[in-house]
Amino acid sequence: MSLDDISIKVADLHSIGSVDALLNEISTRLARFVAIGETSMIDLKSLPFSPDEYEGLRTSLGRGEASARLETIGDSELYETHYPGVWWVTHYNVEGDVVADLLEIAAVPAILHSQPEDVRDGLERLQHMLVQPK
Amino acid sequence: MSLDDISIKVADLHSIGSVDALLNEISTRLARFVAIGETSMIDLKSLPFSPDEYEGLRTSLGRGEASARLETIGDSELYETHYPGVWWVTHYNVEGDVVADLLEIAAVPAILHSQPEDVRDGLERLQHMLVQPK
Repeated sequence: MSLDDISIKVADLHSIGSVDALLNEISTRLARFVAIGETSMIDLKSLPFSPDEYEGLRTSLGRGEASARLETIGDSELYETHYPGVWWVTHYNVEGDVVADLLEIAAVPAILHSQPEDVRDGLERLQHMLVQPK
Repeated sequence: MSLDDISIKVADLHSIGSVDALLNEISTRLARFVAIGETSMIDLKSLPFSPDEYEGLRTSLGRGEASARLETIGDSELYETHYPGVWWVTHYNVEGDVVADLLEIAAVPAILHSQPEDVRDGLERLQHMLVQPK
């Protein structure tokens, strides 16, 4: 699993200039997800938020029940917000810098899905291990 | 999200008496998942494994990149094994006792998915919050 595996378009939202505008955008997208299952991402780094606004957004969205962690070349931290279907997804590089900070509207973030090619590779490894003499 | 939300049938596998037999069963199921996308669960508590065999299974399956946690009335811990598509899912009650110990063959465990009714409830809460006067 890697950032490259994510095929969902990350929206660029230069027109959104306040936390309230962003919450409205999230509400619109979540309604679309409920209606037709459309998933999407919002790139928080593309928004002109001050640190205070950023913290205000975090407070408004809150934290829900689920959190997850991916340990790859850089780590990724994910949690469901207080609004199910709205996930906060942060990717770090090996130095620990944030390289992507996203809101993802989905039942579960795309990056958490085992990728088909990884599943096939793993299946081959498992089959290979099972035929080895002990 | 709760155990009750899981509609996937949990297999009862009294006939499986060794770690190797279980690994073969996992391999068969993973192949079926690759071929036709069929997901399934294996109830580890239904298997007559000794603590040593249980640890042997854990070692054989290893740990992959992804892990997750659900904090509900009891916690749930999930991690992807060394074989993508094979997840180890453990549910605890409030006292911290294991109430379910499962292997799940899926792209992502069912319990991590935001449930449609929770998403709808959250959307209503968000819409309600956005129309409140500040």
